[in-house]
Amino acid sequence: MKRLLVIGIGAGDPDHLTLQAVKALNRADAFFLLDKGEEKRDLVRLRRRILEEHARGPYRVIEARDPDRDRTAPAYTEAVDDWRGRRADVVEALVRDELGDSETGAFLVWGDPGLYDSTLPVLEEILGRGTVRFEYEVVPGISSVSALAARHRTGLTRVGRPLRITTGRRLAERLPEGAEDVVVMLDAQGAFMRAAREKDEKDNDLDIFWGAYLGTPDEILIAGPVREVAERILEARAEARERKGWIMDTYLLRSRARSPRRWSPRRWSPRRGSPDPGE
Amino acid sequence: MKRLLVIGIGAGDPDHLTLQAVKALNRADAFFLLDKGEEKRDLVRLRRRILEEHARGPYRVIEARDPDRDRTAPAYTEAVDDWRGRRADVVEALVRDELGDSETGAFLVWGDPGLYDSTLPVLEEILGRGTVRFEYEVVPGISSVSALAARHRTGLTRVGRPLRITTGRRLAERLPEGAEDVVVMLDAQGAFMRAAREKDEKDNDLDIFWGAYLGTPDEILIAGPVREVAERILEARAEARERKGWIMDTYLLRSRARSPRRWSPRRWSPRRGSPDPGE
Ligand SMILES: C[S@@+](CC[C@H](N)C(=O)[O-])C[C@H]1O[C@@H](n2cnc3c(N)ncnc32)[C@H](O)[C@@H]1O
Ligand SMILES: C[S@@+](CC[C@H](N)C(=O)[O-])C[C@H]1O[C@@H](n2cnc3c(N)ncnc32)[C@H](O)[C@@H]1O
Repeated sequence: MKRLLVIGIGAGDPDHLTLQAVKALNRADAFFLLDKGEEKRDLVRLRRRILEEHARGPYRVIEARDPDRDRTAPAYTEAVDDWRGRRADVVEALVRDELGDSETGAFLVWGDPGLYDSTLPVLEEILGRGTVRFEYEVVPGISSVSALAARHRTGLTRVGRPLRITTGRRLAERLPEGAEDVVVMLDAQGAFMRAAREKDEKDNDLDIFWGAYLGTPDEILIAGPVREVAERILEARAEARERKGWIMDTYLLRSRARSPRRWSPRRWSPRRGSPDPGE
Repeated sequence: MKRLLVIGIGAGDPDHLTLQAVKALNRADAFFLLDKGEEKRDLVRLRRRILEEHARGPYRVIEARDPDRDRTAPAYTEAVDDWRGRRADVVEALVRDELGDSETGAFLVWGDPGLYDSTLPVLEEILGRGTVRFEYEVVPGISSVSALAARHRTGLTRVGRPLRITTGRRLAERLPEGAEDVVVMLDAQGAFMRAAREKDEKDNDLDIFWGAYLGTPDEILIAGPVREVAERILEARAEARERKGWIMDTYLLRSRARSPRRWSPRRWSPRRGSPDPGE
């Protein structure tokens, strides 16, 4: 039986790798790296670096081109479903043709495989087709959500309160309720600008904890009352996207607590390297 | 300046430790282990094992008794706030009396420090008091949420949809809406039983992915339509709590998708060790 490993590699810092992930890397005969085109080259490079450092080999690396997604389609879910089907075609062929019968193949998944990642649904789709058989295991990873909270040194949940993890699209439809903190991923449009103009339904101001390229040398952190820092985030985003050609950012939105957080300059400024340099 | 490290150690499997956490362990002069009483002895033991294996020392281990929380208090948030204040007293004393002026102390936090954990709010409270000064860093960890999804080999988010992370108390107040998947933590009462009796607001059935002692040798996994497996989960819980004296469990609730998941026996049965033994 063929075996597949879906390995969460963390959200940018190679040291996000878990010991379990390192062990899994060393069980694989082949690694499948799906290249999503120009802008994601950097991410493939990070995966290659992880392999060079931690997989003691011998192993094969098989690169394939990820099918393009129609990002202009109005029906988001259908566009993703369609893309997922074509992605399943690619992966099915890889597993069938590039992996021997008792070999182990691995996918290195960004962050945690459970969060907005198509690898697991794609594998389920392939199994459903019944054209190629395999077993698979999943290794959890540090998500960008956990990385964001750690870098801002804040909790994600307040006592007894829920946390919602959602997308930029959804946030644009509905602002957080006062009782609920919200993490936003996949926001290409700056949906937080709406939070900067409105208050929550209980008329509280919202705070934002924003991070881009978390865990990487390009990391940018900005936090504060969303009203006050939203413009600065927009500018930082535009500048970074311009410079690097792509951006990955995520943020936590939270209604202002009764006892306001003591915002201090060290929390605001973009910083990098070991936390709190020179403090 | 004193320095504190808040290190996420993962949710049960010692191999959930990240490389970043291992490096952090090796920067600490002293580890503060807060013992929460009988039933949590096992968790303190796991932390000690992690230190023995990964901290090359020299280091000190300082154990202290965590103040008890009034679990019978009707006002949950106030009870937690009060307990947090007393906890801050204990930690403040530890940092003041047990840590030298340029030393580094560390807290080993279960799962990810961002999720339903009081360490960060307690440190903020102490800083707010202004009685002892320190800097601190946070190292993210594998949460029980990521561990749950990995062991069930399922995603937490579906295309474009939000995920809510909440508590048993909150779930009892409000079932998941059809559009939203829900992870429930801190559920002492079996709030999922309500989901077993009702459908979601769009009249869909709900599936549950339940896990206890995730990542440990006692791990139990049960998944399926909540109507069909809820009783079995209740029994497994009662039996395990009886046997071990305490339980840690969490679950994902999700409205049945249009295309039903193919439940197969391997998904249902409690299993342990490397996933899918003997498949
Ligand atoms: C397709 S999702 C994958 C999420 C990933 N599975 C995880 O657990 O973080 C991509 C989104 O994750 C967020 N993201 C991932 N890595 C990030 C990083 N290093 N910094 C900031 N945001 C990141 C961004 O919101 C991005 O749009
Ligand atoms: C006080 S919260 C701490 C959560 C932790 N910070 C995390 O990231 O997982 C404790 C709750 O986490 C969940 N939990 C933690 N570890 C678990 C495990 N190994 N298996 C199942 N549930 C776990 C349970 O719902 C438990 O009631």
